[in-house]
Amino acid sequence: MTKIQLPVRIGIIGYGNLGKGVEKALRQNKDMELAGIFTRRDPGSLSSGGKMHSYSSIGDFTDKIDVMILCGGSATDLPEQVPEVVRLFHTVDSYDNHARIPEYFDRVDEIAKTHETLSLISTGWDPGLFSIARILGQSILPDGKDYTFWGRGVSQGHSDAVRRVPGVKNGVQYTIPLDSALEKVRAGEQPEMTAADRHERICYVVPEEGADPSNIETAIKTMPDYFEPYRTTVHFISEEELISNHSAMPHGGIVFRSGRTGDQTRQRIEFSLALGDNPEFTASVLVAYARAVARMATLGHTGARTVFDIPPGYLSPKSAEELRRSIL
Amino acid sequence: MTKIQLPVRIGIIGYGNLGKGVEKALRQNKDMELAGIFTRRDPGSLSSGGKMHSYSSIGDFTDKIDVMILCGGSATDLPEQVPEVVRLFHTVDSYDNHARIPEYFDRVDEIAKTHETLSLISTGWDPGLFSIARILGQSILPDGKDYTFWGRGVSQGHSDAVRRVPGVKNGVQYTIPLDSALEKVRAGEQPEMTAADRHERICYVVPEEGADPSNIETAIKTMPDYFEPYRTTVHFISEEELISNHSAMPHGGIVFRSGRTGDQTRQRIEFSLALGDNPEFTASVLVAYARAVARMATLGHTGARTVFDIPPGYLSPKSAEELRRSIL
Repeated sequence: MTKIQLPVRIGIIGYGNLGKGVEKALRQNKDMELAGIFTRRDPGSLSSGGKMHSYSSIGDFTDKIDVMILCGGSATDLPEQVPEVVRLFHTVDSYDNHARIPEYFDRVDEIAKTHETLSLISTGWDPGLFSIARILGQSILPDGKDYTFWGRGVSQGHSDAVRRVPGVKNGVQYTIPLDSALEKVRAGEQPEMTAADRHERICYVVPEEGADPSNIETAIKTMPDYFEPYRTTVHFISEEELISNHSAMPHGGIVFRSGRTGDQTRQRIEFSLALGDNPEFTASVLVAYARAVARMATLGHTGARTVFDIPPGYLSPKSAEELRRSIL
Repeated sequence: MTKIQLPVRIGIIGYGNLGKGVEKALRQNKDMELAGIFTRRDPGSLSSGGKMHSYSSIGDFTDKIDVMILCGGSATDLPEQVPEVVRLFHTVDSYDNHARIPEYFDRVDEIAKTHETLSLISTGWDPGLFSIARILGQSILPDGKDYTFWGRGVSQGHSDAVRRVPGVKNGVQYTIPLDSALEKVRAGEQPEMTAADRHERICYVVPEEGADPSNIETAIKTMPDYFEPYRTTVHFISEEELISNHSAMPHGGIVFRSGRTGDQTRQRIEFSLALGDNPEFTASVLVAYARAVARMATLGHTGARTVFDIPPGYLSPKSAEELRRSIL
């Protein structure tokens, strides 16, 4: 079994919802400890028990941190920071811009190899656990179809789109799998279905005073790609109701593989998540993968990796012997 | 990416339901081919397109086969054959005697290292895919509870027990998860539940002529461990009905991880299988892992492995680049 120095010392870069989730997740893992949080904001303005430092000071921590978990966004933070940070540290990130993953991987891989560090990119639940479900499904049932459903959950992108509609003061959008679509997949019929055939969208909107609700509703429902052609429902509520009932960040989804073996025998694999808090769960995934990165780095691995490259056993604090005895 | 000679040449040892399932699964995987089937029965009595050979002749095939998939039973076949076969070939098996896995692993590991072969033991769906679901759940949500449900499916062990009851001519037993138990787990309540709290057992029995059904029913329901204390229902049917409605081998189950993050936020991971044919599906898992074994052996790995040691990417025929582009 891999011998690593315990506890694994973790640094967090970025202190939004995801970074705070990592801080909480580390408290649940006795073999890991929080060694520092790094922010581009004023570190003095943020409380976290004296662990807060300026992002620009990461170079002072090369002897104090084993793995850096980067908790910024995929649009600008991660593509900028990971290539910098991986020169000094092993890293884990949740880069989720699917279309740009190949070039991002290549860039990080080259730098990590040069600096002899190990970098796990694009983990979390999608990409991440859902990717594992997809590869298991496709590899085991090559004659089959994949279906990914998202929700029930809050989509940040769609909520932002709702809030940009004229007359909208505040709003939240839920993406919800359609039961009728789930039933078809579970029946093994292998239907062709677009994302709009699989999901509905429900919006809770606080209108500005004097705004015309019917104009808002039309503007939302006809917004191309975001809401058109989805089945969309718009509810108007008060700001108080929005805050008390719609401040949580639930999410989740289901990955199906519906396949056939032998003489048209139906076989189905289903992986689902029902998450009370999306960033806290994503953070918990990042922390488990940080453990794997610490182990693999100790074994001499360098370069970029994805979840496809990580043996599941490395995610657990248990030894290989213990895993064979208790979990297999 | 690993460079392996394609197609991967597979040998099958044992030609029961599982071996036949491997034969069918290989037809669905263009990067693999069936190179021979080995049996301890008279090979001439079994038809399979001239691929049938005597088990005693495996030594003649060391240049013709890359990976042997062993399809015998865990009680006697695998503990006897795998230590023999792994002296000559890389192997994959479905050894499922959970309590004896540690000693089996150690024994195979020692022989495989000596003979510089690679042996993946104990794959399939449980142990196998369910083990992966359990390690993901426990590693990502350390504060939580596991629940494994089996069914709806035919349990061979329980069906055998039913058939041994005096007065029973034939019979099949289905293990079925209790909806009430599934609901409790999905509600995130983390209840304590025994296997009998989670499942019911339904038996379809063909009585011998003149046998007393009430005696049979009592004998089944009071059989310790197998049926007592489970909720058990016994239906008496004709042999024709048994053959026409209960000859299939469906199975499946669900692995849950019900956990908490942060301030008691509920998070749930669920992995489920709904299998039209249990041996065909298990065979499909073995074939995907045989691909991984071929790759890892080419990279120089030797010794015993479990699913915990296999990076998911090796299961797919796609290259690492293609996986990052299309599945991640």
